[in-house]
Parts: sequence; structure tokens; C-alpha cells
Amino acid sequence: MRLHHVGIAVEDLEEAKARYLLLGFRVEAEGEVAAQGVRVAMLKGEGEALLELLAPLGPETPVGRFLAKRGPGLHHLAFATGRIEEDLARLRGEGARLMDEVPRPGFGGHRVAFLHPTFGLGVLWELVEA
Amino acid sequence: MRLHHVGIAVEDLEEAKARYLLLGFRVEAEGEVAAQGVRVAMLKGEGEALLELLAPLGPETPVGRFLAKRGPGLHHLAFATGRIEEDLARLRGEGARLMDEVPRPGFGGHRVAFLHPTFGLGVLWELVEA
Repeated sequence: MRLHHVGIAVEDLEEAKARYLLLGFRVEAEGEVAAQGVRVAMLKGEGEALLELLAPLGPETPVGRFLAKRGPGLHHLAFATGRIEEDLARLRGEGARLMDEVPRPGFGGHRVAFLHPTFGLGVLWELVEA
Repeated sequence: MRLHHVGIAVEDLEEAKARYLLLGFRVEAEGEVAAQGVRVAMLKGEGEALLELLAPLGPETPVGRFLAKRGPGLHHLAFATGRIEEDLARLRGEGARLMDEVPRPGFGGHRVAFLHPTFGLGVLWELVEA
């Protein structure tokens, strides 16, 4: 696998996009994932790994609750795989607790699944079919 | 610039290395940065971006204090640049507060500098000369 993107929780998407533009990262795609209550901007620099800015659509959403509890900052790591079901089954066999038992549609049409952060030793892991 | 690595604070380096091995990440380099009170394992997957596991050498170190306050998890983002002094001066001109006014030696012989996380909107940014 490889690092697909780093998820970053932000209060204000425009402010955050402007800040990462200073590092040479540009918006590759932007849109809402209504089921997750989040607006997403996917940023690309010179390398392959992306930055995914996540702004909540309201306080009672996963990212809204994250911001209320921890403040803005690093949110999750996403890893690209070509065999998402196989990898989920293998990680469950290693003791992972899955937040998504079956992959669900994520941003950009990719199928995704999150693992409970206890398995990532405090890091929320996402698998992305890509 | 591109994402050079993601820094991850861990309690136990061996446990964390084993966990990321399940995602196909392998140890590319390992060692201590005594000046920062940290033991580092740099992990490589199939992509270019690396994961930097950080285990404190004691509680009264930057990573030891981070773990006591926030628990294990995502710690910082590092961006590769070929012109570290120039980029630091430019970011200072944009309002960044620098934790390192001049680059200092980091892991693997690279020169590095950290920016105060207020500028990264809650994310600790590092520049790495690479």
C-alpha cells in the first residue's frame, strides 16, 4: 500500500486552502459528501500523496464533533489499495475493529472504509480503493 | 513542495512498526535524534511519502509531553523543499511564526525547521531540505 492522502479537519475551507497554497498545494477537486456531513477539498502538491481538507456542514457531524473536542488539525491517514475487501478481511483477522464492515462510497467515487483508531494506535486509518 | 513524511507519536516503537507492517510499510531507517529526545523509525510503503514514527526517550521531551497531553497519534506534516532558507523567509513574510529561525540538523542528515502550529491551523508543519 501507499499513503493516498492525509485528512485534515478545518474550521474554514477557504482559509485552509489559502494556507496550503503557500506550500504549493492546489485544489484538485472539491465537493460535499452529504452522508458524512462534510465539505472536502482535495489538494495536490508536487508529489503523489494528497491532502484532504475536511470542513463540517454542521456541529452534529463526525468532523464537527472532532473540531469541538480536539480543535482543528490532523484527522486521519488514508492508504490506497487495489483489493479493499481482501485487505479489510486480513486486517480484521489481525484484530482490527472496522468502522465500515463493507466499503462505502467516499469522495471522488472511490470506495472507502475506516478502521477504529485503537487499531492504528491512536491514528484513524482509512482504506481507499485506488 | 511535496509531502515528505507524516510524523506519528507512539508509545512503543516496536508495536507501532509491527502495526504499519500490516499495511506494507517497512523500516527504511531507524535511529535517535538525541537533541530532540526521540527515537525515530522512518517507514516506506509503495509510494514516495514516508511515515516517521516518533517514540520519546523520556517524559520531559517534546514527544513525551505530546503523548502525556494528547495521547498517541498524528503529530506533524513535513514538506520537502530544495530551498529551505528561501521558503522560511517567504513563510515568515506571510505571517508564520518559526519554531526554528534557522534550519537545524534533523533525522537522516536533512536540515529541517518547524513552524508554530497556529500558522498551520492546528497542524505542526516541518520543512525538510530534500
